[in-house]
Amino acid sequence: METATQWQQLQPSYIREILAASQQPDIISLAGGLPAGDLLPVNELQPYIEALTAQPDLFQYGGSAGYEPLRQDLRRRYDLDKNSELIITSGSQQGLDIIARTYLDSDTHIALEAPCYLGALQVFQLSGATICPVRQTPTGPDLEELEQLFHTTAIKLFYAVPDFHNPTGVCWDLKTRQAVISLCQHYGVFLLEDSPYRALRFIGESMPSLADLAPDITLQLNSFSKTVTPGIRLGFISGPEQLIDQLLRTRQAMDLHSPLPFQQVLLEFLKSPTYSLHLNKLKQVYRDRYTALAESLRNRLGNQAQFNEVEGGMFLWLTLQEDAEQFAERALAAGVATVPGCHFYPPHYSADFNAHRTLRLNFSHSSIEQLRHAVDRLTEIL
Amino acid sequence: METATQWQQLQPSYIREILAASQQPDIISLAGGLPAGDLLPVNELQPYIEALTAQPDLFQYGGSAGYEPLRQDLRRRYDLDKNSELIITSGSQQGLDIIARTYLDSDTHIALEAPCYLGALQVFQLSGATICPVRQTPTGPDLEELEQLFHTTAIKLFYAVPDFHNPTGVCWDLKTRQAVISLCQHYGVFLLEDSPYRALRFIGESMPSLADLAPDITLQLNSFSKTVTPGIRLGFISGPEQLIDQLLRTRQAMDLHSPLPFQQVLLEFLKSPTYSLHLNKLKQVYRDRYTALAESLRNRLGNQAQFNEVEGGMFLWLTLQEDAEQFAERALAAGVATVPGCHFYPPHYSADFNAHRTLRLNFSHSSIEQLRHAVDRLTEIL
Repeated sequence: METATQWQQLQPSYIREILAASQQPDIISLAGGLPAGDLLPVNELQPYIEALTAQPDLFQYGGSAGYEPLRQDLRRRYDLDKNSELIITSGSQQGLDIIARTYLDSDTHIALEAPCYLGALQVFQLSGATICPVRQTPTGPDLEELEQLFHTTAIKLFYAVPDFHNPTGVCWDLKTRQAVISLCQHYGVFLLEDSPYRALRFIGESMPSLADLAPDITLQLNSFSKTVTPGIRLGFISGPEQLIDQLLRTRQAMDLHSPLPFQQVLLEFLKSPTYSLHLNKLKQVYRDRYTALAESLRNRLGNQAQFNEVEGGMFLWLTLQEDAEQFAERALAAGVATVPGCHFYPPHYSADFNAHRTLRLNFSHSSIEQLRHAVDRLTEIL
Repeated sequence: METATQWQQLQPSYIREILAASQQPDIISLAGGLPAGDLLPVNELQPYIEALTAQPDLFQYGGSAGYEPLRQDLRRRYDLDKNSELIITSGSQQGLDIIARTYLDSDTHIALEAPCYLGALQVFQLSGATICPVRQTPTGPDLEELEQLFHTTAIKLFYAVPDFHNPTGVCWDLKTRQAVISLCQHYGVFLLEDSPYRALRFIGESMPSLADLAPDITLQLNSFSKTVTPGIRLGFISGPEQLIDQLLRTRQAMDLHSPLPFQQVLLEFLKSPTYSLHLNKLKQVYRDRYTALAESLRNRLGNQAQFNEVEGGMFLWLTLQEDAEQFAERALAAGVATVPGCHFYPPHYSADFNAHRTLRLNFSHSSIEQLRHAVDRLTEIL
């Protein structure tokens, strides 16, 4: 059976190979985007899991917007604007997809920073929309390039990961946040703010989100995959009520609703005092792992590999003095899985952005010892 | 923000109102498609739910095709052809959506029986494909009309619910199954067989599925929403390996994978002896409820409402001697929620099929007493 035209734009994902490689026992994987396996709060969730069957309604069909008690809690917890609403989604990946299907046509143009989260690129490819990349700087998107793009092209949506970007770890400064919002307001561009790493700041002070600063023009995605557990696939979209209502109709056609039982488990965990203890522990461990990786890289690789400091998230973005794809192949042979930067660019754009010398390293999923050992192995092959 | 062109074809769903109405305490709802709430096997699931946190890997990211031990079990349990594979989906609704996004374009033509499952109509509308309805007879699709359609139009896919169709309860006879397959083979049409009710046969002998008869050209959807619990949102797509591989790529972009913990719970339940006990109980109760509803309708409504007998599933399809939308409004005012048949037809086609006099009644979710009481109320307003 012939596949759909738009489907043919969908690139095969490197993620599958990443996951396959990361499951081999002798490989140290800095390739995936997995949270620390040893810190998954399974014991903390246990009492809420055990109590599930006391609520048989959790096993019946539910509403498409999500489990109402969880929605109520999230509205308060995330301090939603009075004109805003939210839908519980099956991870923020599904949130991206719901938005793409509601607003993107094959003649739509969308903007995003390059490099970009791979899963977002896939969703946008599948929608058939034209992807317009804007170069990323250490403080956020290149504002001149962004304005130039907005000026010359009717951009509908700007996809942004302002907090601890995947793959670069970049966190936009406040000035850039304000400038991007001004440009979007001026040119009538909506913002799609993806915030899976926002709660994982381990150094410095939190900055207002785009949704905080401009709730009228922002759809925000949040995920519990990085802060609680990815296996339960829960996240949410929040934004102006009118848009959420349109998204809800799309979502209903897609899979009716997210599974109910773990929405209840998540709610109880978020309400419990153990949640903030867990989050603090996670941030402390990620800071220690990041620090160990950064120090090892500086000490062992010196000028041969450069990177900017990060203040949170799960990734460090290395720029080599050689081709990163070839390097990643040698690294894998030496027992370290990484992702060459070129995979994070839209097709045909990678060369323009010096992507061929970049490499993403994950520091959330490996122990300090493994991270140091990985750098030892990388040093040997450089 | 302006919505996508294809999205604008998506009809607002009657399901939302159905669910809202069915939650009011003084209403007897024959409107939804909910399994019996009092038979949800929550106690049977309890030991497997309690054991979840002993497997922390269930809380980490998983593969897009689903939890491997469950996939293995399903391959055996459903006796998959050696060239077939399967993907675990978030309900069969998501299965429909994955298939639509992989194979349907805005210039694709697909065939389906009219009337049709509402959620399938929504998915096909969202894909932008042209929907070509074929009249349903008591033994399956009208074969002459189907051949005429295949002859005049390049149909890519025929969407079929051969076992206890939603909304009509029709079960295709063997001759029709074979004839449809011959036509599909002759005209190069793929089959999309939706089987959520197949396991709910409570009278007579099971018939081979289209996937059994023609595995090379059939994608089959199965769901655990009717046989186990809908709240956990689990189903699967099975079919030729090459197609499943394409579907897998689509699915990965959509939401990565279905939640893992309840895939493990489902696996343990399917493997336990309590599963077949539960299924037998379910079929027995549904048979009793159906019989009570059918008898009450015959005794109380006589010639004013006609229906064909069903041998399984959850629905009975009534043809009135008056307009069903007006009747359903009066019924709701009298405390009985139903769904007028016109909602199950593609737009602009309902009038052609005498839809305005039909009504879908669900018998799985109400007790025998409630069903009899509902018929009392309907009798009063006829």
